[in-house]
Amino acid sequence: MKGFAMKKIGETGWVEKERPACGPCDAICKPIALAPCTSDVHTVWAGAIGERCDMVLGHEAVGEVVEVGSEVKDFKPGDKVLIAAITPDWNSLEAQGGYAMHSGGMLSGWKFSNFKDGVFAEYFHVNDADGNLAHMPEGMDIAAACMLADMVPTGLHGVELADIQFGDTVAVIGIGPVGLMAVAGAAIRGASTIYAVGSRKNCADLALEFGATEIINYREGDIVEQIMAKTNGKGVDKIVIAGGDNDTFAQALHMLKPGGIIGNVNYLGEGDYVKVPRLDWGCGMGHKQIRGGLMPGGRLRMEKLADLVMSGRIHPEKLITHRFTGLENVEPALMLMKDKPRDLIKPLIILED
Amino acid sequence: MKGFAMKKIGETGWVEKERPACGPCDAICKPIALAPCTSDVHTVWAGAIGERCDMVLGHEAVGEVVEVGSEVKDFKPGDKVLIAAITPDWNSLEAQGGYAMHSGGMLSGWKFSNFKDGVFAEYFHVNDADGNLAHMPEGMDIAAACMLADMVPTGLHGVELADIQFGDTVAVIGIGPVGLMAVAGAAIRGASTIYAVGSRKNCADLALEFGATEIINYREGDIVEQIMAKTNGKGVDKIVIAGGDNDTFAQALHMLKPGGIIGNVNYLGEGDYVKVPRLDWGCGMGHKQIRGGLMPGGRLRMEKLADLVMSGRIHPEKLITHRFTGLENVEPALMLMKDKPRDLIKPLIILED
Amino acid sequence: MKGFAMKKIGETGWVEKERPACGPCDAICKPIALAPCTSDVHTVWAGAIGERCDMVLGHEAVGEVVEVGSEVKDFKPGDKVLIAAITPDWNSLEAQGGYAMHSGGMLSGWKFSNFKDGVFAEYFHVNDADGNLAHMPEGMDIAAACMLADMVPTGLHGVELADIQFGDTVAVIGIGPVGLMAVAGAAIRGASTIYAVGSRKNCADLALEFGATEIINYREGDIVEQIMAKTNGKGVDKIVIAGGDNDTFAQALHMLKPGGIIGNVNYLGEGDYVKVPRLDWGCGMGHKQIRGGLMPGGRLRMEKLADLVMSGRIHPEKLITHRFTGLENVEPALMLMKDKPRDLIKPLIILED
Amino acid sequence: MKGFAMKKIGETGWVEKERPACGPCDAICKPIALAPCTSDVHTVWAGAIGERCDMVLGHEAVGEVVEVGSEVKDFKPGDKVLIAAITPDWNSLEAQGGYAMHSGGMLSGWKFSNFKDGVFAEYFHVNDADGNLAHMPEGMDIAAACMLADMVPTGLHGVELADIQFGDTVAVIGIGPVGLMAVAGAAIRGASTIYAVGSRKNCADLALEFGATEIINYREGDIVEQIMAKTNGKGVDKIVIAGGDNDTFAQALHMLKPGGIIGNVNYLGEGDYVKVPRLDWGCGMGHKQIRGGLMPGGRLRMEKLADLVMSGRIHPEKLITHRFTGLENVEPALMLMKDKPRDLIKPLIILED
Repeated sequence: MKGFAMKKIGETGWVEKERPACGPCDAICKPIALAPCTSDVHTVWAGAIGERCDMVLGHEAVGEVVEVGSEVKDFKPGDKVLIAAITPDWNSLEAQGGYAMHSGGMLSGWKFSNFKDGVFAEYFHVNDADGNLAHMPEGMDIAAACMLADMVPTGLHGVELADIQFGDTVAVIGIGPVGLMAVAGAAIRGASTIYAVGSRKNCADLALEFGATEIINYREGDIVEQIMAKTNGKGVDKIVIAGGDNDTFAQALHMLKPGGIIGNVNYLGEGDYVKVPRLDWGCGMGHKQIRGGLMPGGRLRMEKLADLVMSGRIHPEKLITHRFTGLENVEPALMLMKDKPRDLIKPLIILED
Repeated sequence: MKGFAMKKIGETGWVEKERPACGPCDAICKPIALAPCTSDVHTVWAGAIGERCDMVLGHEAVGEVVEVGSEVKDFKPGDKVLIAAITPDWNSLEAQGGYAMHSGGMLSGWKFSNFKDGVFAEYFHVNDADGNLAHMPEGMDIAAACMLADMVPTGLHGVELADIQFGDTVAVIGIGPVGLMAVAGAAIRGASTIYAVGSRKNCADLALEFGATEIINYREGDIVEQIMAKTNGKGVDKIVIAGGDNDTFAQALHMLKPGGIIGNVNYLGEGDYVKVPRLDWGCGMGHKQIRGGLMPGGRLRMEKLADLVMSGRIHPEKLITHRFTGLENVEPALMLMKDKPRDLIKPLIILED
Repeated sequence: MKGFAMKKIGETGWVEKERPACGPCDAICKPIALAPCTSDVHTVWAGAIGERCDMVLGHEAVGEVVEVGSEVKDFKPGDKVLIAAITPDWNSLEAQGGYAMHSGGMLSGWKFSNFKDGVFAEYFHVNDADGNLAHMPEGMDIAAACMLADMVPTGLHGVELADIQFGDTVAVIGIGPVGLMAVAGAAIRGASTIYAVGSRKNCADLALEFGATEIINYREGDIVEQIMAKTNGKGVDKIVIAGGDNDTFAQALHMLKPGGIIGNVNYLGEGDYVKVPRLDWGCGMGHKQIRGGLMPGGRLRMEKLADLVMSGRIHPEKLITHRFTGLENVEPALMLMKDKPRDLIKPLIILED
Repeated sequence: MKGFAMKKIGETGWVEKERPACGPCDAICKPIALAPCTSDVHTVWAGAIGERCDMVLGHEAVGEVVEVGSEVKDFKPGDKVLIAAITPDWNSLEAQGGYAMHSGGMLSGWKFSNFKDGVFAEYFHVNDADGNLAHMPEGMDIAAACMLADMVPTGLHGVELADIQFGDTVAVIGIGPVGLMAVAGAAIRGASTIYAVGSRKNCADLALEFGATEIINYREGDIVEQIMAKTNGKGVDKIVIAGGDNDTFAQALHMLKPGGIIGNVNYLGEGDYVKVPRLDWGCGMGHKQIRGGLMPGGRLRMEKLADLVMSGRIHPEKLITHRFTGLENVEPALMLMKDKPRDLIKPLIILED
């Protein structure tokens, strides 16, 4: 089969591989929609997860089942399925402890385009099909379905980590596709005021549509100063970090109230230490919790998120700014993610015929 | 001063009383908007809290401060204020333990028209003004403000008790004003499908506007059967009970999944035992949690709920179906609550001039 | 192979069966220690789970692995293993949602001597070996190991359900083996005063040794009156129910403070409705949470409980009052459980040679 | 009245002051036992909270009430009382939100020897007497009572922040008096293995007595390497930090499992940034929560901790290594804390006659 791969750090290209084998609990799927992710860019061009050779890229897909193992009960060839970017081993100790995304080791629930070939190929392999596939609801928008793989669960997990409660004043830092879903999530999780921190116009417009009450543009002044002024010096109750870098935590902790929580879902790619300023952190005693975590995957999560889409609570299809057709177009779509033109939020590739 | 009172069980009337005295931490307010509550009806005509003699009724008000005690720091005469129906003693052991509404004993945070005169008078007394008043935001709709006293915090507390999570399928049983706010709360707390159980058309219409995905009318068949059919026999993740009686719990537990939670905010006025069916409760082992609680009161709560209104997340003013002007109209407004005509959701009395 | 079975409701006997087959993820074990449980008595003589024909009884065992499936990674023949009475399907929706014990339906994580043959046989089958077996630590007391199957996780789960916090005053109702482990669990979870409700002397003695601060004997007066008197009318913060019947909940709710929690781990075998008294439950508004649940099973749980034993925090081997040797003695041991002589807490059968 | 004060940064001495005035909700107490704290040392000699002039030091005391305000209901002159170092304003927004220790601003629930005179004087002032005093139980050891002011609630709060569960493997870093109480707290909160990190012999001995399973001495090698070796490279589930500095967090995050929690109760006195290593923190995605907070104060907390002492679960009196008699001896006792001789854990001054 054909797949679009990372040939080595800094280089991509098409490769020819064997179709993956299907274990007794697994499924083989073919993609019907795909999306590249900033993580693919980090993987290839920043070497974020280290060297890989001819590894098929991609972890955002909607698929059709073509084969299932002997032990699979709930899925059969022909089923259209949602698949999370994270596909845990559900019997692992970490999953039993409530952290399935770390099954087998920190971050190891992330398998596609990390420990095995990803989804940018004619076929891809899904471990534990009953635990990691979900039936795509009839009538679901294919773009929304594809955004359920990573953008939606990651953005909403930021909201869960920050534990937003009724009436909380919230800042969402970063309004790329993940941050935008965090804004949408905060709005349907009970936040009142939502400060969305970003600068690109199409993102800002969508943030307002998704429930942000105000855009904080860092080009118009220090974001901490802006938010402290708007909150009369009190700061915010909760913060979701979906962009920035190690220094972003220093800003966040300054404008967070005691008793507040940071929920980080931004992959930190560089630097030795995350900046936690001693004084703003109350000399270790301010009850400002710092949390950060990889999105939860698995079937139950996908079913619940699909229900949110089907009941009209969230509209992830609005993230899509660029559409392509045909597997061959994963390459230009990925380059788009790499180049980040200002009108880009998220591209989608449709393969269904 | 003049007040509309419960003269004894089964009898109401106007009484003349001394204006209440103001302790060092307290405030005296005059009402600028009032609303009667079903609880007032229960108090007078069902004797729900026992005999009371010439006790001023009412616990839903928006007010203007006319006097404050020597220790009050954040409020002064002339301030327009939100006041929750529940006004706890914040230094009590119960409040320190997280259950301020039970300060001094079970349900004892409820003071208005229970342990002291209520708000249907020219003046009323608020204990711990700094802890129990909140400044009314400029530009806030007076009807929304008045609904923050009881309907909003009670409805939203049902959602908190049921601990609704992203994508949960939820049933809200009862869509009077509290149930309607529970529907609105479920929708902004992450529920996907919301089954709203009720029969009156104006309530059903508002439930759909507030975020219900489907109305379950008990006049069209057993509600349990309807909901089990719609969920393919699986039942719902969470249930808010905002109407019905002791038997409602039997219905709820039947249609609740294992691991589910019931959040009750319906005052149970009659009968010896709440019906918890042994088998549907998994013989005691089904992890179906049964919770029920009085709304939280206090300033922080009111500020957060006011923020929800001002940011447009909830629209409690839409509950108001009947409007009156002048203190003298608390009497017909209360009678309306007693008679419950089919077009009633909630009446409001405006006193401001 | 030979097994001791429920032949039909009310009748037990030895049966000859095929050794169970081992699926790709499973293991076959032979028992090295066994214990009968009150549930076995209910299953046979009360028909608690309905009719069963020639089903091998027993769900408390320590075993030795004799065969594993092709997909099993962490266990091999000869390994000595702990096995919980509850062996969930870890990729099920319920397990993904945090309630593995209900995998596949309410209570369906309980498989031994319920949906398949139990452990009172020469060999028994364990589904998902990597998820449901745990290596027995070297040097572990075999009696303690066997008590980890059900008595310890069930008793400690009552404590978890009741969410005991530092300094809580707690009542544990029922001090059979499960209640005794609840007492031990409450003591190492932060309870201060622990009222242990029971009457048998050996149980009371062990309760005091396990951390109870006072024994409440129902033969010496109403337990509610005794506990209310000892708490100066305030009642207790948390209650674990590990004995009694539907009426026990009425007693518990009367003596529970508002904001308190009941954690039930007692199997309720009879009656239509659990008694929840409306007034003591605060007319639905007292924030007295009612929880009840089947014990969690699985490997992580067993490893953590084994660590508690090995670090000397709990001493479940002290539950054993009667010891037998040889598989043939499961029959008299079970009869002992049925007859409940006053000197019995828990019998053990050793099979190892 | 006479008091031992911080005259300015770096200088202490006796001062003569007016006995403090008693507001309507307050109490005036005289000390019957006192203890100096490392914080007092930081306050004077490191200028940790900035300049102060003639401010009476001390926040650890047991007292006798000599005067109460008009609104105080539950206390009267002559009552012997426990007083937490933290005395919140219970009606503040922060207290209503669950973080009373930050009432009025981050860390502002700490008033003694910070915003007002402390307890090292003939008399001291307690705000909100009903909310911040607790009756000393009859028969309570005076040393234990005095340790309830700060050492016990701070140590146990570390355990609460780390959210220790049954069977968790825990590291407690730092075994001064706070760390020792964290060890004791971990043991009665369900930890199995407890690694206590420290080097002084008397502390190590007491840690073992309080429930530590192993001492990790940093003089015998890198503590991370030692703990990783002992856990077969897996690390620990939870960590309480009760000593060290900004760099300690780097060690802790390295040896913490994904899904783990750090609970810090160590006051961080120096440096710009707490060290959170990006890679060990899972590039922001490892679900390693970082929490830190000031101890909770108030009456309920003191009552619950007193119950723990009276029921024999904790033995804080064992912390006392040096005893003095008479107010004048607060000076040498404080110097002892400053000099930290190797045989010191905690000194106590008794004033009662």
